[in-house]
Order: sequence, then C-alpha cells, then structure tokens
Amino acid sequence: MFDAYGTLFDVFSVTSLCEQMFPGKGLALATTWRAKQLQYTLLRSMMDRYEDFWQITRAGLVYAANALGLDLDLDKRTRLMDAYMTLAAFPDVKPGLQQLKAMGLRLAVLSNGEPKMLESAARTAGIADLLDAVISVDQVKVFKPSPRVYELAATHLNIPKHSIGFVTSNNWDAHGAGSAGLTTFWIQRAAAEPAEELGFPPAHVVHALTDLPNIIRSF
Amino acid sequence: MFDAYGTLFDVFSVTSLCEQMFPGKGLALATTWRAKQLQYTLLRSMMDRYEDFWQITRAGLVYAANALGLDLDLDKRTRLMDAYMTLAAFPDVKPGLQQLKAMGLRLAVLSNGEPKMLESAARTAGIADLLDAVISVDQVKVFKPSPRVYELAATHLNIPKHSIGFVTSNNWDAHGAGSAGLTTFWIQRAAAEPAEELGFPPAHVVHALTDLPNIIRSF
Repeated sequence: MFDAYGTLFDVFSVTSLCEQMFPGKGLALATTWRAKQLQYTLLRSMMDRYEDFWQITRAGLVYAANALGLDLDLDKRTRLMDAYMTLAAFPDVKPGLQQLKAMGLRLAVLSNGEPKMLESAARTAGIADLLDAVISVDQVKVFKPSPRVYELAATHLNIPKHSIGFVTSNNWDAHGAGSAGLTTFWIQRAAAEPAEELGFPPAHVVHALTDLPNIIRSF
Repeated sequence: MFDAYGTLFDVFSVTSLCEQMFPGKGLALATTWRAKQLQYTLLRSMMDRYEDFWQITRAGLVYAANALGLDLDLDKRTRLMDAYMTLAAFPDVKPGLQQLKAMGLRLAVLSNGEPKMLESAARTAGIADLLDAVISVDQVKVFKPSPRVYELAATHLNIPKHSIGFVTSNNWDAHGAGSAGLTTFWIQRAAAEPAEELGFPPAHVVHALTDLPNIIRSF
C-alpha cells in the first residue's frame, strides 16, 4: 500500500510551471504551497472542518501566492491547479510496481488525495492498471495521520492491519501508520532527509520502490 | 483570553542563545524548532498520541538540530529547554494587560503549554498577578485548534463562548477559535504576515495588546 503525493507522484514537478509564471520565485512558490497544503490537512482535520484535498490544495496555493506577494490571477491559478491533476511519477515507481505485481502482491494506494485527483494522476503516470485499489481519505473525511485513515485501509481490503506493508516518503506518515498498527516502509529518496521524532519510526527504510522486492522476499 | 506562545511570550527570544551555541545557525535553529514544535502538536493530536508541550518542544528541538546537522549534546539541550521556561514577554504585553485589568475585565491564558511552563513564563514576565486563570490544553490532552480546547475555556470560566474575546498572534489559532464560536482578535505584530485560508478569519485585527482597550470600549 502506497502513499501517493511525494511517494508515487512528484509534487515538485509543478515547480517548472511555477518558475515559468513567476521567474525567480518558482521554487519558493512550490515549496510554500506544498508545506501549507500539508499544514491545512492537519489544521482542518483538527478543527473538524474537513474540505477535500482539491480545496485544501487550492487554499494552500492562494496562501503561498499571498505570502510571496505574487499576483495569482484566475488563469494562473487554474493552470497550476490543473498541473496537480497530471503530476509526474518518480522514475522508480512504474518499474517498482511492476516487479511487485509480478510477485503476486495486491497493490493499493492510500492517500489524502481527492478521488478524481488520484485517478487522474495514476492514469497520467501509466500505473492505473497495476493498482487493485485506490483508497482516499475522502471516505472518512479526515486526513492522515488519523488512525481512522489507516483503519479504513484494513477495512477496505479486509486484511489485518499488520499484514499491510505501507510505503511512504513522508516520514510522519510512516509514524502515523506505525502507530495505527501497519507495517511501515519509509522511502528516503534524499539521503539527508532527517527522521521525525514522533515515537513510531518506520520498520524498514528503502531508497526506491525497486528496493522493495528484495526486502519482501527476505521475510 | 490570550494565547501564550508567540502572543504573550516571544518564542524567538531563544534565538540569541541558539546563536551563541551554534554561530551562524541560531536563527535557522530557532525557526526550525518552532515550526516543528507546532507541527508535532498537530501530528500527535491527529495520531491520538498526546504528549505534553514540554515533551513536544524537546522533540522539536532534537529534530531541528538533526535537520541542521548540529551537535546538540545533553548540556546544550538542557540549557535551550530551560530558556523556554523564561521566555521574554513582548513589550506591549504587561502595559496592555494592566490597561485591560483596569477596565474590570477578567483576563486568562488558553495555551498549548504545559502548566509548569506557563506558570514559569508568566512569573518571569511579571504578569502572573494580572491573570485570573491560566488554562492549559493538558486538561483535555489534545492541542489547538481542536474545538475541545476552546470549549474547555468556556467551561472553565462558565461563560458562553461568544462572550470570550480570544487574542492570538497565530492566525490559524484565530481560525480555530472562531470556528469553535469564540470572538477572535488577531495580533498581527509583523505587518507583512499573511492571513491563513481556513474559512474563519479573525473578527478583529490589532497590532499590539495596547490597541485592545479602545476597541473594546467601542463595543
């Protein structure tokens, strides 16, 4: 089971479009947008004021543009939001999923994403046919790392939580899934990325999806 | 009713000690520490894994030092944590509270802080005698912006939520309090600070605590 944004899909693949629209500010916009998007999933969940990930992503973009003093007109906003529907997948994603599929494993996504966003991104990345299930938090109206999200995965697939191998590049997501009882794998694509201090460190660390088959065979 | 950290007490008053310990990295350490501390209050609340603000603050410090590649030995860690017990108050705090008190208002703190930290900071700032109540989220074991925190304030003081004027420098905290039904005041000390996009903007904006008496008299 895979997290989507940051794990399968590269959220920073929007950076070049950001830079094209706002020369010299592209990276700052993409970085602030992503950070605020994540923060809003947490804050809205805490407030009991769920909005779906599409709305959260748009609010994060509006904040980021304001914070950086950028003139985000409706056309630019629409084009940037559209880019989120067709994010690039990391290069190791398709071959990794194909190898795991060939081992006879069931593959699924468990994501904060709104269902249409997830479907569109999976189709763009050419991995839709490899996935047995695409599960969105939209079913429970609360975001990760609520235990209700990780429990939804077990309920949906009808298997015990510890039998789910949950793979994420977001270290906090691994802590959340581990706290909820899933077996966790952290994809640390950038070597220098520090681990979080949240009490439930990932059981396994890999550097690409293509590292997973060998680890799983060793179980 | 006042938020504490960032509103009454300047969390960046630890920056000079950070800089003294880690020359050239003080601001980065203080900034990352604060951001991670806030993020951990949200993540741990979401995970249903509450730890008190002292433990959260320490975890945030450990992460920040790791992220910046700093050698945080036990002595340095202890001294930085101790600094959090005696944060400086902003210059407008004591005169602002004195003026409000002279109007006959009841004054209280509602904070993520652990009770001993709050008591120590209020004493250091010389404002302990001005406060009728110091309310910590530790009573409900969840952090802001959970509505349970803001409801705790109304229960504790035995007054309706809308009769509480809640003052915070953290714009997201104002959204949380507003969503829960309190009357909100945002202290925007830095003019350029952008507002959050969370659906419940503050009812009033001030630039210092000493702006409050005139606004309240106009009601």
